Amino acid sequence: MSAELSEIGLYGLAIMGQNFALNMAEKGFKVSVCNRSPAKVDATVARAKAENIATLVGHKEPKDFIASLSKPRKVVLLVMAGKPVDDTIKLLSEFMEEGDIIVDGGNEWYPNSIRRSKELEPKKILFVGMGISGGEEGARNGPSLMPGGPKSAYDALHPILERSAAQVEGSACVTYCGEIGSGNYVKMVHNGIEYGDMQLIAEAYQIMKAIVGLSNDVMSARFAEWNKGELKSYLIEITADILKKKDDMKGEGYVIDKIKDCTGMKGTGMWTVKEAAEQAVPAPTIAAALDARFLSGRKEEREVAATILKGPTEVPSVSHEQILEDLQAALYAAKICSYAQGLCLIKAASDAEGWNVDLSECCRIWRGGCIIRSGQLDHMRAAFSKDAGLKNLMIDADFAAGLNQRHCQWRRIVTLCIASGIPCPAFCASLNYFDSYRTANLPANLTQAQRDFFGGHTFERIDMEGSHHCQWSESHKDIGDVKERTAGNIGS
Amino acid sequence: MSAELSEIGLYGLAIMGQNFALNMAEKGFKVSVCNRSPAKVDATVARAKAENIATLVGHKEPKDFIASLSKPRKVVLLVMAGKPVDDTIKLLSEFMEEGDIIVDGGNEWYPNSIRRSKELEPKKILFVGMGISGGEEGARNGPSLMPGGPKSAYDALHPILERSAAQVEGSACVTYCGEIGSGNYVKMVHNGIEYGDMQLIAEAYQIMKAIVGLSNDVMSARFAEWNKGELKSYLIEITADILKKKDDMKGEGYVIDKIKDCTGMKGTGMWTVKEAAEQAVPAPTIAAALDARFLSGRKEEREVAATILKGPTEVPSVSHEQILEDLQAALYAAKICSYAQGLCLIKAASDAEGWNVDLSECCRIWRGGCIIRSGQLDHMRAAFSKDAGLKNLMIDADFAAGLNQRHCQWRRIVTLCIASGIPCPAFCASLNYFDSYRTANLPANLTQAQRDFFGGHTFERIDMEGSHHCQWSESHKDIGDVKERTAGNIGS
Repeated sequence: MSAELSEIGLYGLAIMGQNFALNMAEKGFKVSVCNRSPAKVDATVARAKAENIATLVGHKEPKDFIASLSKPRKVVLLVMAGKPVDDTIKLLSEFMEEGDIIVDGGNEWYPNSIRRSKELEPKKILFVGMGISGGEEGARNGPSLMPGGPKSAYDALHPILERSAAQVEGSACVTYCGEIGSGNYVKMVHNGIEYGDMQLIAEAYQIMKAIVGLSNDVMSARFAEWNKGELKSYLIEITADILKKKDDMKGEGYVIDKIKDCTGMKGTGMWTVKEAAEQAVPAPTIAAALDARFLSGRKEEREVAATILKGPTEVPSVSHEQILEDLQAALYAAKICSYAQGLCLIKAASDAEGWNVDLSECCRIWRGGCIIRSGQLDHMRAAFSKDAGLKNLMIDADFAAGLNQRHCQWRRIVTLCIASGIPCPAFCASLNYFDSYRTANLPANLTQAQRDFFGGHTFERIDMEGSHHCQWSESHKDIGDVKERTAGNIGS
Repeated sequence: MSAELSEIGLYGLAIMGQNFALNMAEKGFKVSVCNRSPAKVDATVARAKAENIATLVGHKEPKDFIASLSKPRKVVLLVMAGKPVDDTIKLLSEFMEEGDIIVDGGNEWYPNSIRRSKELEPKKILFVGMGISGGEEGARNGPSLMPGGPKSAYDALHPILERSAAQVEGSACVTYCGEIGSGNYVKMVHNGIEYGDMQLIAEAYQIMKAIVGLSNDVMSARFAEWNKGELKSYLIEITADILKKKDDMKGEGYVIDKIKDCTGMKGTGMWTVKEAAEQAVPAPTIAAALDARFLSGRKEEREVAATILKGPTEVPSVSHEQILEDLQAALYAAKICSYAQGLCLIKAASDAEGWNVDLSECCRIWRGGCIIRSGQLDHMRAAFSKDAGLKNLMIDADFAAGLNQRHCQWRRIVTLCIASGIPCPAFCASLNYFDSYRTANLPANLTQAQRDFFGGHTFERIDMEGSHHCQWSESHKDIGDVKERTAGNIGS
């Protein structure tokens, strides 16, 4: 009897859910599937049959679906983030019992997972928030999995997750991120980093197109060549594919030239930027990528502004081959700085929440399955593996050497863009992050002096202990008792 | 009897509260004051006496305090934002009745004001959230006031606020911002803009110091000179004062050189950056200023990084006078772009919340009393007064001309910094904002193509209506039914 029960259930059979169910079933696990609208159950069962997968069974009633699972029951939800997840938990948990496990595989705002975990506590149902990256293809063939929740739940899920995740050099792209919320957080930052990568590539494309004047085919070839070296990554690879794609719909030209320059988004990039501000972690490259999406959406405004605001009329004359070589170096360097920001953010949240997230493991599980997979991630894994307390990826000896070797080329690219009037917000943001971080003495002494001047906020001195206040000017004298300041009320 | 009642009450007698109470009383209004600890009531009464102000009366019991006010009673709170405000409202509202008015003058997160307004609805007490800028000096001599709440409450307060606010060319720096929350929001963005201004000045200081090699006195003189021209503003003025201030404590050197480069903050800048992300409004200059404060706090990390990460060894040779002239132009241009961002943010929130905030009025009331007061604000007021629907300050004819005239100098400053390894994140952020906004065709077509490639997110075409999906590559075929996408679940 129990031999007939399924090892795991999957609820929510849109493309992602279908694909992830087929993936697990193909790995030999018996999988039950269920969905709110029964048609998708039939569709999924039909796909399993067509693909000769015998270990997938469909259920149309939630009660039957849950009853078909071996204990402790394990159910993965792949429904829309937000209220649908709450509704589904309510629907299914009715038939579940102590020790059972619910895994939400959506891109969820991490405090929601923490809340749900608490709501399930009275029933002693274990709740896991698991980031899944890799899109539809990853879900089907092996995604990167970022689960956070009770360790016992992770251990129970581990055999299935390990087989279903992407495999890189014999290691599965899944790890225990930490307690509830950590998996969602790691996935959120993964997506923020993805925003940064995509924006840097977009800027490189714009430079190649607008400054160097390359054709789509030549650009495609260059990206393909870059994909053999230090920039090797999924996003560089697909950029090469995209740029050479002919427009079959019109029969002439390239698809890339027909696409409107307006980028959509789904929220994880915005969450990352807000979280970076909340955690006091600078993430300017990721923020620049988010802003670029916002600005892309204001196309009508840009078209008007283009007729009003002027750029340079002369572009500096630089050897095209030199620009392309510099650009490769700039992409490498700017990318490393962006990853440094994202990883610092995970660390800050992990410290604040007590998650104990292992950054080396994050880098390891991002090496395959997910959108940001790349050759560099293995070096990043090594950097944090060597020194778990590494304060910033940029100062790891290997990455520091890589950055030091390339910073002049990177500066040439940025100055070329600035002088040419071509926007390069992410390249600039990374470079300013790099330059600020390596500056022992920033001009923040002046900022603090201003704050003391107008708000009596006091300052630290480099030559004495304690907080100090200065009577800066005869014409702006302190009013009232300067020792007795308003706390948290006025000024900034 | 009623002749003896006070026209307004002020609760919370830290420096800001004392000063604002004395300000109102000096303008001839009878003011009652009260405070949790009675010692400050005595201190305030003593200050009033010392300053020959006869219309201020102290109360130590909340009940007596409220009873001393004429109806409708008007009470301004100047206590710490957050729980103390809730506690004080609870304490005082017990003795208040229908039609009475509570004004919170703190830097409060605007949803808290909206919540408090609702909580006071059953008692029909009117609640106003009023931003106050100008620090201690402004509170005493005339601040910029940004009230939001019921119009009837504003009308009742208006005679007192109008007299107590800063006066610029015969007009009071106070306006009705809109319904509850709007005043806090306008003040929040004011502070965000203040962060941007301060960071741009800090970067200019760093350039003068590290690249041009000027002494503090020469820098001070230059800021003083700038303060006579297009950069005329309170922050430029106090920077001149700060740079020339001798270190009385040590008897040698300048205070500015003794201040540790670590900047504190109180939250409004962070809120602005988070709100910009939430409202999908790019505010990169303000974000750069916030990040600079975050990075300033990581001084120990920076000191380590300075020994590991390398910058340029040769600095470009440029005439010092040329740099200083360019710098003045760059400060003007970068500042205009930063204000454009902040004003767009207010507009977006106003549209979302239905506040109907008048941007021209915001600029008008910021001309005096507050930290960002400057000559340019009158031109900004004029721009939005001429065209209330102006999409972006940068494209106003006068500001566009100003930017077009200066952009080459601005570019020279940024390229000089990049080539010299001197961080200039806010100058860069403004310039990239300018260049992005005036670019009719951004590389967002590639970003959207990537999103369609890995997530099937579809794209718009420039030559056809509708949403389109492309089968980009033979090696990465669509899996499952591409028409049936997961909504909001995976990818970005």
